[in-house]
Amino acid sequence: MKRGPKPRIGVRERLIARGLSRMHAVGFTATGVQEVVAEAGVPKGSFYHYFDSKEAFAIAVIDAYAAELAAPLQALLLDEVTSPTDGLAAYFRESAVQYGALGCLLGNFGTEMPGQSEVIRQRLAMHFDAWTRLVGAVLRKAQTAGELDAAADPDALAAFAVNSWEGAIMRTKVDRSMRPLETFFATFFGGVLRAR
Amino acid sequence: MKRGPKPRIGVRERLIARGLSRMHAVGFTATGVQEVVAEAGVPKGSFYHYFDSKEAFAIAVIDAYAAELAAPLQALLLDEVTSPTDGLAAYFRESAVQYGALGCLLGNFGTEMPGQSEVIRQRLAMHFDAWTRLVGAVLRKAQTAGELDAAADPDALAAFAVNSWEGAIMRTKVDRSMRPLETFFATFFGGVLRAR
Repeated sequence: MKRGPKPRIGVRERLIARGLSRMHAVGFTATGVQEVVAEAGVPKGSFYHYFDSKEAFAIAVIDAYAAELAAPLQALLLDEVTSPTDGLAAYFRESAVQYGALGCLLGNFGTEMPGQSEVIRQRLAMHFDAWTRLVGAVLRKAQTAGELDAAADPDALAAFAVNSWEGAIMRTKVDRSMRPLETFFATFFGGVLRAR
Repeated sequence: MKRGPKPRIGVRERLIARGLSRMHAVGFTATGVQEVVAEAGVPKGSFYHYFDSKEAFAIAVIDAYAAELAAPLQALLLDEVTSPTDGLAAYFRESAVQYGALGCLLGNFGTEMPGQSEVIRQRLAMHFDAWTRLVGAVLRKAQTAGELDAAADPDALAAFAVNSWEGAIMRTKVDRSMRPLETFFATFFGGVLRAR
């Protein structure tokens, strides 16, 4: 009995992992589908079996990255031992160390893609919003724990923290120095949160 | 007497203006030299008369943008009437309105270029540093005028302001909303500076 080619388990995941690695390093435009399939060791036809276009592929890459970025915050919300503000500071610090040289994929795509793809712009906006809500939930927990002034607005502070962290990680990439992130930590966690 | 082609006055400037417009909108990689020369209405040979490479052209574009970004701050330093903090807030606000939809060219290139061009990365670092120093000088003036606590560090606050503004303008581009910038203004000018 003759059978058609059977998709191998893990091919989609392998393509996404290679794509994430390339797109994180050089962006959307400079990433070639050809090099992604070659690095993943799969035939080009397989790529189009899983993804309709490079744009659809980028959406899957963005989703994978956003899930990775959100996971520690979801864990922090369930953690009843760690101080929420200490946990949040550690989260931003560890993410900065992990991504520093490449920057944040959401921020990189955030400067590159809005003029090129409306569907990618909307996906980025959705993930930034979800991520900001998670940070806001951690800050609300901090407020309940008495670590943050009752009059503070956790959602506004979350939006400010996320965007300031994005700016700081961009500068870290340009300067090849962790100093912009140190300034962010000192000013936001040592200043903005304490002043409230 | 036969004469070689004589460079026309303004061709270099026209190329830079078109390049700035394209690169600001879509970035370095997605900008074609061909479309820039076509839009500027000059023959392709002229481009290479003025610039050795697309990279050298991008450096000239970055320099032109950085000069544009610095000019109002230089004027503010000489302005003896306007309050330095009010002037700085107005500067960030006006720049955000002017560039909002496209983001900041330095920030856009800051996420796109460090992995692609070391010479462009260094140029961006140089301009970010000069720009941050200018903001620091305005904050020092604010401190002398008694608008900022004597114990505050104007240079650290300047670095934080510049990077946070960069993050906010990136989010404005993604969200197609001025709200991230409003949060920046309220938190930085209404909070961080006042708390010092």
